[in-house]
Amino acid sequence: SRSLNLAVIPGDGIGQEVVSEGLKVLSAVLPQDVKLETKEYDFGAKRYRATGETLTDADLDALKRHDAILLGAIGDPSVPSGVLERGFLLKLRFAFDHHVNLRPSKLLPGVATPLAGQPEIDFVVVREGTEGPYTGNGGTIRKGTEHEVATEVSVNTAYGVERVVRDAFARAQARPRKKLTLVHKNNVLTFAGHLWTNIFNRVAKEFPEVTTDYIHVDAATIYLVTDPARFDVIVTDNLFGDIITDLAAAVSGGIGVAASGNINPSREFPSMFEPVHGSAPDIAGQGKADPTATVLSVGLLLRHLGYAGEADRIDAAVAADLTERAALGTRSTSQIGDALAARVAG
Amino acid sequence: SRSLNLAVIPGDGIGQEVVSEGLKVLSAVLPQDVKLETKEYDFGAKRYRATGETLTDADLDALKRHDAILLGAIGDPSVPSGVLERGFLLKLRFAFDHHVNLRPSKLLPGVATPLAGQPEIDFVVVREGTEGPYTGNGGTIRKGTEHEVATEVSVNTAYGVERVVRDAFARAQARPRKKLTLVHKNNVLTFAGHLWTNIFNRVAKEFPEVTTDYIHVDAATIYLVTDPARFDVIVTDNLFGDIITDLAAAVSGGIGVAASGNINPSREFPSMFEPVHGSAPDIAGQGKADPTATVLSVGLLLRHLGYAGEADRIDAAVAADLTERAALGTRSTSQIGDALAARVAG
Ligand SMILES: CC(C)[C@H](C(=O)O)[C@@H](O)C(=O)O
Ligand SMILES: CC(C)[C@H](C(=O)O)[C@@H](O)C(=O)O
Repeated sequence: SRSLNLAVIPGDGIGQEVVSEGLKVLSAVLPQDVKLETKEYDFGAKRYRATGETLTDADLDALKRHDAILLGAIGDPSVPSGVLERGFLLKLRFAFDHHVNLRPSKLLPGVATPLAGQPEIDFVVVREGTEGPYTGNGGTIRKGTEHEVATEVSVNTAYGVERVVRDAFARAQARPRKKLTLVHKNNVLTFAGHLWTNIFNRVAKEFPEVTTDYIHVDAATIYLVTDPARFDVIVTDNLFGDIITDLAAAVSGGIGVAASGNINPSREFPSMFEPVHGSAPDIAGQGKADPTATVLSVGLLLRHLGYAGEADRIDAAVAADLTERAALGTRSTSQIGDALAARVAG
Repeated sequence: SRSLNLAVIPGDGIGQEVVSEGLKVLSAVLPQDVKLETKEYDFGAKRYRATGETLTDADLDALKRHDAILLGAIGDPSVPSGVLERGFLLKLRFAFDHHVNLRPSKLLPGVATPLAGQPEIDFVVVREGTEGPYTGNGGTIRKGTEHEVATEVSVNTAYGVERVVRDAFARAQARPRKKLTLVHKNNVLTFAGHLWTNIFNRVAKEFPEVTTDYIHVDAATIYLVTDPARFDVIVTDNLFGDIITDLAAAVSGGIGVAASGNINPSREFPSMFEPVHGSAPDIAGQGKADPTATVLSVGLLLRHLGYAGEADRIDAAVAADLTERAALGTRSTSQIGDALAARVAG
């Protein structure tokens, strides 16, 4: 009999609520012969306030033993900006070499979008997850004085860029439209830009069926609101990916439905799956949070672990639920979870 | 009698067409007693291809003698990405210390926007223009090999950040809503983020009437499409400003109407005014380009030089023209210029 050994990190704010629903749907969709084991970890603001710890070496050793990680949300106004982000979220992405940060965007019929005319949106962003301006390189001199200088260093390696570009080409090749767009700012960030562009063009030769395209990140934000249908797969740097995936989420149904996977395709370390939204402390504990993004993240998790049929059922359940949502009125977090669990089981 | 001694840089693609209309409107709006002198410069792709030059020391000396610079657009597919951007546009911004990159966004009634429900949009972005990831710091080792490493260094100084933050507070103070939002990514780019945030909070104390706000750049792209009315004045770093102003232009009428000023408030060097759009080689020479963004840039130029009444007349003429546009059918570049010139003169 098979087993799925999951690390669960509810985290802060609405994290606990949405993760509960994610697990509910996971249990409902998993085949009977798969033994689901979950272990909860208490990372986040509470533990940081109590102990000063964000993520220790012992924590990393413990997490390593799981097949995958499901995360709710990390972040709280009581903790200074950057402490949990750099000390937990980014530390984990870097420690487990989550270099493929996968963020699909699909606008379903009937789902609200701020864009006029309900455009067709169905693309996936492959965001590099371990390099660029996210490495923490840089520093500050003469801090707090009028002569302070602060630097941030974006680090880009051929090794790091090639593996994510190759992953994105393979994903584009597997989709019906077979189109891959590189998003960068190679006219200004010429050092990193040339590296990305040259590797992209070289790897493209190995995928002759994939149509390629390049656009600057500033222009990409324009197309995301005027012509999102032009995108199929996008590959981009860590920071540009951070920015355009929030915009992509906003135009394709909101961050309430935006899922993400922090993936290590080699499976050397467990991959982590999390909704794109944050901890939303203003609505925490009120049963108002939408668990859909977490449920879709569970779908990405299942697909990553080889449960493609189960992942398809989750996607179909969410699609059906979203399409009918306008008629359903306001539902609580657990009501939405119940509805999705019923659909995937049925 | 007064004089206005203008450097004119038509540049590439549609640059010549839109600049002609900008000058047409400028002549029409200027008071009779102001002697307008213009000198045209041939910077851009053509000169680069002929001479290999983008902007020489002698060029900078010549430009320095003008009161202001009007630029159409620079860039052509025949020139490798980055050559004209770094060698001309950015070189000029840095040489003339254009640290206030001003980009207003206003959605006028009846103007097409990709957003549903015609939201209220009336804000201005103050983008830092001489620091951040735009300095050209960084480099490449082992170029072209599998061991290549490319870095980009974002440089942020207390001096550079404080002057632009102060400028933005003054602009917010002068507007009815008196609200200033800092956009950064201080939870990840903690070195630069702390510098920006600390200076922002310190300068805020000198402007007690101004309401302040902080949001991450990724979240800012969400608000720009879901709730653009929340913005009044935004101050941000060079790269974040580049990205969000293209999105801002897209939602508030398109880049055909987005103006910008590269301003040196000390007037030590002439400031440069240019439409946000590029050279659009695909429609160049066909009379299809919209000169509105250039005309609005002329308005920013006039306001910078102290011609506030004339700048108001340009804004009003553009507002009237845009509001009636849907009924007017397709017009050529020069027809739009003629209409605007007639309005400001009348
Ligand atoms: C919270 C933050 C560190 C994170 C990021 O910048 O990657 C978030 O914005 C995201 O997109 O997952
Ligand atoms: C052309 C390029 C150098 C420029 C920039 O990145 O600043 C442009 O995108 C802009 O916004 O003015």
